[in-house]
Amino acid sequence: MKYPNNIKKNYKKEINYKNRGMDLENLINEACKYYLEHNLAVIYKKPTPIGIVDVDYKNGAVINKAYFKEPSTLDYNGIWQGKYVEFDAKECKSTTSFPLSNIHLHQIKHIEKIIEHGGLAFLIISMNEHYFLFKGSDLITFIHNNTRKSIPFKVIENLGYPLKFNYNIGLDYLTGIKEAYEGVGYFENTKD
Amino acid sequence: MKYPNNIKKNYKKEINYKNRGMDLENLINEACKYYLEHNLAVIYKKPTPIGIVDVDYKNGAVINKAYFKEPSTLDYNGIWQGKYVEFDAKECKSTTSFPLSNIHLHQIKHIEKIIEHGGLAFLIISMNEHYFLFKGSDLITFIHNNTRKSIPFKVIENLGYPLKFNYNIGLDYLTGIKEAYEGVGYFENTKD
Repeated sequence: MKYPNNIKKNYKKEINYKNRGMDLENLINEACKYYLEHNLAVIYKKPTPIGIVDVDYKNGAVINKAYFKEPSTLDYNGIWQGKYVEFDAKECKSTTSFPLSNIHLHQIKHIEKIIEHGGLAFLIISMNEHYFLFKGSDLITFIHNNTRKSIPFKVIENLGYPLKFNYNIGLDYLTGIKEAYEGVGYFENTKD
Repeated sequence: MKYPNNIKKNYKKEINYKNRGMDLENLINEACKYYLEHNLAVIYKKPTPIGIVDVDYKNGAVINKAYFKEPSTLDYNGIWQGKYVEFDAKECKSTTSFPLSNIHLHQIKHIEKIIEHGGLAFLIISMNEHYFLFKGSDLITFIHNNTRKSIPFKVIENLGYPLKFNYNIGLDYLTGIKEAYEGVGYFENTKD
């Protein structure tokens, strides 16, 4: 059985994040928990997609063999003020530009679909020790109008909405959602 | 490490469904695919929640040990006409009543939260060779007003919305959603 290389790489990265403690994913998970407890939004990280090959029922359904699948949607989704919300968390090591290879083609198509159906789809990008909410619509526009394989940091700084860390909440992305979508009349025409 | 018994049982059931071919879950998955391809809704089954114990990186990130986790949300979620949609598929073998032990307490709390935030939450129940959309609000009302541990089939027949199988679509639950939620002015006040 073959396992695509990029999946191997992604998982390794995820493991590293976990060891580092309060990485981007943890900061977002903390916020999800806070929003849930304070009844502000119901947003969960989806389970990691896994293909199960073998299960041992004798010892209480232990999975003995499985492999990581490529995600076709984004990592987090849920509801906020009646709106469908979906996003992915991306840590970017480059200081100059965000490589588009971070996002799979089917994920880009999925973002387009979510926007078309009236949902909020975006990325949360950690880059140069800053956090940004980068709207799916800006991502799609960039891809359609550029041939380059990465988004310059300046573009992310200009179009993105800065997100702040808060000791009680974690990474307060809900404030970012409000800024990004309320400010442009999103709530009147339900268009991204 | 201990694995709860009910998880073992649930997983066995799921495997059986798969072997039987067009069971409830497959019929719903077919419909999700159809709706996605025809751009009617973007609804996916969430991956099965799994706790990973051991991964072998030498052979391309093969999972060597993992276990099934209890789901705290429902199996399917997504967006339809700007609305957040979440539901669970339940096959019921009893012909007289639907056991509430089919639904975990945290899932019931989750349904309440989704409704409160303006989303559509429901069950799709297969029972007595019929399919029903049973609204989350009806489920919550029943639980609050009854001490019994199961919902009589008559109640499901009376309050549920019958769903039809369609050779092109699979189980056409979207027509059921329209009947269940458009008919009661859902779209005016965004309340379930």
